[in-house]
Amino acid sequence: MAGNTYGNNLKITTFGESHGRAVGVVIDGFPAGIMVHIPKIQEALDRRRPGQSHITTQRKETDQIEVLSGIFEGKSTGMPITLAVFNHDARSKDYSHIKDAYRPSHADFTYEVKYGHRDYRGGGRSSARETLARVAAGALIQQWLAPKGVSIQAYVNQIGHLKVPLPYTELDLSLTEKNIVRCPDAPLAQKMITLVEQTKKAGDSVGGMITCVISGLPAGLGEPVFDKLHAELAKATLSINACKGFDYGSGFDAVSMRGSEHNDEFVPGDPNPQTKTNHSGGIQGGISNGMDIYFRAAFKPVATIMHDQQSVDKFGNPITVKGKGRHDPCVVPRAVPIVEAMAWLVIGDFWLRAGKNPN
Amino acid sequence: MAGNTYGNNLKITTFGESHGRAVGVVIDGFPAGIMVHIPKIQEALDRRRPGQSHITTQRKETDQIEVLSGIFEGKSTGMPITLAVFNHDARSKDYSHIKDAYRPSHADFTYEVKYGHRDYRGGGRSSARETLARVAAGALIQQWLAPKGVSIQAYVNQIGHLKVPLPYTELDLSLTEKNIVRCPDAPLAQKMITLVEQTKKAGDSVGGMITCVISGLPAGLGEPVFDKLHAELAKATLSINACKGFDYGSGFDAVSMRGSEHNDEFVPGDPNPQTKTNHSGGIQGGISNGMDIYFRAAFKPVATIMHDQQSVDKFGNPITVKGKGRHDPCVVPRAVPIVEAMAWLVIGDFWLRAGKNPN
Amino acid sequence: MAGNTYGNNLKITTFGESHGRAVGVVIDGFPAGIMVHIPKIQEALDRRRPGQSHITTQRKETDQIEVLSGIFEGKSTGMPITLAVFNHDARSKDYSHIKDAYRPSHADFTYEVKYGHRDYRGGGRSSARETLARVAAGALIQQWLAPKGVSIQAYVNQIGHLKVPLPYTELDLSLTEKNIVRCPDAPLAQKMITLVEQTKKAGDSVGGMITCVISGLPAGLGEPVFDKLHAELAKATLSINACKGFDYGSGFDAVSMRGSEHNDEFVPGDPNPQTKTNHSGGIQGGISNGMDIYFRAAFKPVATIMHDQQSVDKFGNPITVKGKGRHDPCVVPRAVPIVEAMAWLVIGDFWLRAGKNPN
Amino acid sequence: MAGNTYGNNLKITTFGESHGRAVGVVIDGFPAGIMVHIPKIQEALDRRRPGQSHITTQRKETDQIEVLSGIFEGKSTGMPITLAVFNHDARSKDYSHIKDAYRPSHADFTYEVKYGHRDYRGGGRSSARETLARVAAGALIQQWLAPKGVSIQAYVNQIGHLKVPLPYTELDLSLTEKNIVRCPDAPLAQKMITLVEQTKKAGDSVGGMITCVISGLPAGLGEPVFDKLHAELAKATLSINACKGFDYGSGFDAVSMRGSEHNDEFVPGDPNPQTKTNHSGGIQGGISNGMDIYFRAAFKPVATIMHDQQSVDKFGNPITVKGKGRHDPCVVPRAVPIVEAMAWLVIGDFWLRAGKNPN
Repeated sequence: MAGNTYGNNLKITTFGESHGRAVGVVIDGFPAGIMVHIPKIQEALDRRRPGQSHITTQRKETDQIEVLSGIFEGKSTGMPITLAVFNHDARSKDYSHIKDAYRPSHADFTYEVKYGHRDYRGGGRSSARETLARVAAGALIQQWLAPKGVSIQAYVNQIGHLKVPLPYTELDLSLTEKNIVRCPDAPLAQKMITLVEQTKKAGDSVGGMITCVISGLPAGLGEPVFDKLHAELAKATLSINACKGFDYGSGFDAVSMRGSEHNDEFVPGDPNPQTKTNHSGGIQGGISNGMDIYFRAAFKPVATIMHDQQSVDKFGNPITVKGKGRHDPCVVPRAVPIVEAMAWLVIGDFWLRAGKNPN
Repeated sequence: MAGNTYGNNLKITTFGESHGRAVGVVIDGFPAGIMVHIPKIQEALDRRRPGQSHITTQRKETDQIEVLSGIFEGKSTGMPITLAVFNHDARSKDYSHIKDAYRPSHADFTYEVKYGHRDYRGGGRSSARETLARVAAGALIQQWLAPKGVSIQAYVNQIGHLKVPLPYTELDLSLTEKNIVRCPDAPLAQKMITLVEQTKKAGDSVGGMITCVISGLPAGLGEPVFDKLHAELAKATLSINACKGFDYGSGFDAVSMRGSEHNDEFVPGDPNPQTKTNHSGGIQGGISNGMDIYFRAAFKPVATIMHDQQSVDKFGNPITVKGKGRHDPCVVPRAVPIVEAMAWLVIGDFWLRAGKNPN
Repeated sequence: MAGNTYGNNLKITTFGESHGRAVGVVIDGFPAGIMVHIPKIQEALDRRRPGQSHITTQRKETDQIEVLSGIFEGKSTGMPITLAVFNHDARSKDYSHIKDAYRPSHADFTYEVKYGHRDYRGGGRSSARETLARVAAGALIQQWLAPKGVSIQAYVNQIGHLKVPLPYTELDLSLTEKNIVRCPDAPLAQKMITLVEQTKKAGDSVGGMITCVISGLPAGLGEPVFDKLHAELAKATLSINACKGFDYGSGFDAVSMRGSEHNDEFVPGDPNPQTKTNHSGGIQGGISNGMDIYFRAAFKPVATIMHDQQSVDKFGNPITVKGKGRHDPCVVPRAVPIVEAMAWLVIGDFWLRAGKNPN
Repeated sequence: MAGNTYGNNLKITTFGESHGRAVGVVIDGFPAGIMVHIPKIQEALDRRRPGQSHITTQRKETDQIEVLSGIFEGKSTGMPITLAVFNHDARSKDYSHIKDAYRPSHADFTYEVKYGHRDYRGGGRSSARETLARVAAGALIQQWLAPKGVSIQAYVNQIGHLKVPLPYTELDLSLTEKNIVRCPDAPLAQKMITLVEQTKKAGDSVGGMITCVISGLPAGLGEPVFDKLHAELAKATLSINACKGFDYGSGFDAVSMRGSEHNDEFVPGDPNPQTKTNHSGGIQGGISNGMDIYFRAAFKPVATIMHDQQSVDKFGNPITVKGKGRHDPCVVPRAVPIVEAMAWLVIGDFWLRAGKNPN
C-alpha cells in the first residue's frame, strides 16, 4: 500500500520522477465507449505546464501527452488507459549540489529516512511534476462526465493578503482564465500579479488559496461513514503538494454560527427538493444533495526560495543551502487545474461507486 | 465499496444504527500478542457517552463494551477483534413523526434518494452514535502504540466566538479533562460552558473547533503522493459527523505567509535532525519528520435544534419540522475523543504500512 | 491486509473463533431495499450445522442466527448487515491437552510461528466453524440474486474412490438434499454413507469432491486479466478449509485434449449466441458468456482422526498426539453449502462490479 | 475495480494491448534500495518471447524492456517502478477479417457483450501478450527475494497424454531449460516436441500441465481465512490465459485418501519442526510451514487453430471463422515463466503483508 493509487472503482496510479524518463498515469476502471479527444487533455496539461507565463518556473517542458494503451479508434475500451509525458528539460547536473542536503520544508529528509535511497534530482518523486499525471487523468474523466452536465471550476481567491471579497456565487467564473493568476476578480488579479512579481524579485515565495465549485452533480453521490464525499475531496485536495488546509460549505466559518442560522431549510423542487441556503456545501451526511458543492484549499508558500538557508545534510552536519535554480514564486495559479483534476477523480470514482450507468 | 471500512493494513469496519440492536466494530490486522485492558476501552467510551454532563443529550446509554472475538487470555491473537455495544434506550416511538420528513441539514433526504429505504429512527446509520465504534477501536490502538511513546491529545480550542488565544505549545493539555467542555484554558472553559447552557436554553446549537496534537511519532510514517499522512488525517477527521474543515501545521494561516518565514530550518539532532520552527506540522512530503503533528477540525452547529423549521417531506410536500426530542447544544466536547480515535486509526494504519515491527 | 475480508464492491468480513463468544459476519455493500427472510438464512446454516446427521461431528450447536445491524422493517438499508451466531457448546476444557501441541496437518504450528499467541481451543480461528459466517452471508446474497434467475447448486460427486460416473448435465440435482451425503446419485449415496460409517468406526477420515453449478447468470460478469471470474471462484473455493484443488469447465481433462475438440463453437441465440459444447465452463477470457458455469473442488481427508500420531510440541519436543474428541469422518457433505456460499459471494461481488442495477 | 491490478501491499498493474503502442506494468510497493539488473529482466522476457523456437508463434517481437520510473542509480527507490515493452510487429491488417467475428473459445463475444467497444486486433487486451508485463514484474521481485534464499522453478510435466511419471522430488529441475518444451525429463521432452510438431502440422493445438515448486520460503507467510497462501496462488495461476485448473500438495489425489495416510507428522527441526511427508504442500491453515510448496496448473489447448470453425458474428449471423494467421500449437512451454512470475507476485505480496523487513 505504497500510496501511488487513488480511487476505488475508478483507480488512478501515477508514476515517474521529475528527472526520470517519463511521468504518467494508468487509469483503471474508466468506462468503455467514451469518445476521447487527446488535444483536450493536452489543453489541460498546458494550464499546468511550467513556463506558461513570466511568473512561473522557467523549466522548459512542452509536456506532450502520449497514449500508451486503452484507447482504440478514438474511444475508450474499458481497459487501463495509460497516458505519459516524457521528460526533456531534465538538467540533472543542476542538482548534484543538493544530493546530500536536506532543504528546509522539502521532502528530502523524510524520503531519506523512509527509503534510504532517493532520486534527489529536482525532488524526484516528491516534485510537483507528478501532478501532471493527475491533470491528464482529470481531463480524461471530464470528457466522460461533462456531457452529463457536471462542471468543475476552480479559481484563485487569495494570494498573500489579497483576497477576493465576494463569494463564488457573485463572481463570473468565466473570467478565471483571462489572467495569468486565474482570479475572476480582474482588478484584484492585477494586484496579485504585481505581488507575485515582487515576490519573485525578492527571491521569495507566497501562499494562496483556491476555491473550487462543482455544479450539476446529481443527488446521491458519496458514501456514508468513512468515505463521505467531502472527506474524499479533502484527502484528494490535501494530497496536492503544498496544500495545508481544506474546508467545504460554511467551513471554518461554521465554528461561530448557531444551528438556527446554519441549517439549510428545504423547499419543494423537481425532481428533488432544493435548499434555500447552502451552508451544507451540497453535501449532507457525506452524500451529495444536488446543490453546488464548493470547497477551499489553502496553499503554503513553496519551499524553494532564492535565499540562503541554514540546514543539515544527511550525515548530520550543519550546512548552508544556497538559493539557486528555477522556482515558482507562487504555485497557486498552476494549482488551479490540479485542484480541478483531483475533484474530477473523486467525482468519477463516486459516480462508479454509486452503481450508475456510466454511459 | 460502501465506505464503512477505514484503513489499509489495519482495517476498521463499523456497523450498527442508532436504534438497532447494536453498534460495533471489527478491527482487522491488529497485531498479535498485545495486552488489551477492556476497562480502558470503556473509559474512552465514557468520554464520548451521551448524558455525561448536563450540557449533552440526555439519552441514557451506559455504552457497555463487549468483546465478541479476537482476544484470548487478555491478549490479541492477530485475528479480527470485534467490539460491540448493545443499544438500550432506543425510544423508537419518538421518531415516527419524522418517518417521512426531511429535517434541514440532516442526512434524511440524501439517504432517501440514495437508498430508497432507510432506518429513520434517530438518524439510523447517520447518527453520531456510530462514532462510539470508532472510539472503541481507537482506544484499542492506543493500548498498542502508547507504550511505544506515541501520544494523541485533542482539546476544544473554540466554541462559537470564544477562542483559546494561545497555541497548543503554550497550554497545559493535562487540564483538558478537568472541565466538561474539554478546554485546557480553564477561565475560558467557564465562559464556554455558560455559552452552551444559554444555547441549550434557547433551543439552539453552536459550532466549535478542536485542536489535536500527536507527539512521539517516529519519522518516516506516511506515504508519498496520494496517501500523504496529512491527507489521511484530513479524510479521517472530516468523516466525523458535523466536521466542515481541516488544516494542519500553519494551515490556513500559510496563505498569507512568505516562504522565507514559513520554511522550517533544520538543526542537528540525535538521531534525526530537528526543525527550529514547525510550520510543517510534523509532516513533509506527506511523511512524518519526528516533530509534533498538530491539526485543527472545524465543527458546525449540530442540525437538531428545538425550533420549528420549514422543510419538505419525501412526497415533496412542504412541512413544518417541530423542534422536539433530545439534543446536544454543542457536540464539540464529545467530539474530542472521536477526533483522537480517528487519529489513532490513521497512525495505526500507517505504522503497519511502514512495515515496522508492530510489537 | 489480514485476510478476513472477501470481495471488492460487496465485502464480507468474518470474525470469531470456535470457542469464543460468537462467530459472525459483516456484509458491506449489500444493496438497499432487498427483502430479507431470516428463516431462510437459518435453513442454510442448518445444512452446515454440526450434528445434523449421525455421520457428522456431534458438537451440539443450534447455530441460531441473530441480526445485529443493517435490516429494518424486513428489508436491507444499504448499511452493513451484521449476522452473528453465539457459541454455546464450547467445551474449552477438552482442549487443554493440546495447548502446546502441534497436531499433524492442522494449523497449530503455522499460527504459532506467525502470531506467537493463539486461541488453541478447537482450532480457534482456523476451525471450520468460521465458515458458518460465510454460509450466512451466502444465504443473504441468494435472497437478492435468486429472484433474478441465478441458481447455484453444489453436490458431492466423490467420496474416497466412490465417484459419480455421470456429468452434472445428466443428473437430477433436486435429489441432492434427499440423503445425508448430499449426492444426487441415490444408489451411490448409500455406498458413500456406508464408507463414511466405516471410516468413522475406524477412527479415520476420508476425502471427497464437490461439483458446483451456477445457472442463469447473465453474460458479462467477471473482469479481464487478474480478476477473472474463474480465478476468483478458485480463490474463494480454495479458501475453504481442507480444499486442495479447483478446476472449471473441462478442467484437468483439458490437458490431453486438442483445440479442435475443445473449442466451443457458437450458434445463434436470443439475445446472445450460445455454444454447442461447454468446455469453457461458461467463462471466456474471465467473463461469463451466459452458459452454465461449473467447477469442481477437491477436499482432503480432515486432519482430526482418532489415532495416536507422532508430532512435536511448541518447545520442540517429540510428543504423541492422542486421538480423542469429536470429529467429522468426512467433511464433504457439510462443505456443500459452504461451496455454494462462496460462489454466491463471488457472483454477488461481480454483479456489483459490473455496475448493473442491483435491484 | 476493473481487475488489472494484482496484490495488496505489493501491487502490480498491467496495461496494454497486443497491437497497441506498448505493454507494461507499474509495480507499486516494491522496497527501496534493491539492486535491479535490467538484463535479468530481459532474460526472463526472452523465455516468454514469441518466436523463441520453431514450435512457438512466429510473431517477431524482440520484447525489449524499458524502465520508465522508479529505478535510480541502479537501485529501487520505493517509488512505482514502470516497465514497458513497445510493440513492433503489430500487423493490424491481419485482423480486419475478424473485426466482427466471435472466434470459438476466445474472449471476443464476452468482451463485446461487456464493453461494447473492443480492440479486436490480435485479441487486444485479452491476448496473452499481456503476460509479458507479469513476467517483467516477476523477474523484478525475484531479484529482491532470491538473495534471501527463495527459489521458484516451474516445468512442463505433461503435454497431451505425455506425462512425466515421477514427482518433482525425483527430478533434476536444472534440466528444465535444456529443451524447448521445458521438461526436465529429457527423453520425454523429445516425444513432447514431436507431439507439438505434429499438432502444428495438423493446424491444431494441444493442452498441457505445469508443476511449480517454491523452495526456501520461511514459515509464516500467508493469511488465514480468505487470503490463504494457496488460495492466492490459485487465483494468480488461474488468471493466466488458458489455465483451467489448480491444485497444490496432494491436490486432487487427496480425494481418495484417508486422514491416517494424508496427515504429515511433525519431527523436531531447527529452528522449526519439519514434516516427514508433505501432502500439505508446504501450507497449513493457509500459512507456509517452511517445507516446499508445490502446485500444478492445467492448461487447455489454445483456441487459435488453423481449421475452419462455425461461429456467429456480432450481428447474430452464422459465419465460418477461417483458420489462418500465426499461432502457438502448445502454449505450455512459454507459460512456464508466466507461472513462475505469478508465484513471485504472490510471494512478494505476502512477504510484505507479513510485515517482515523487506531488505
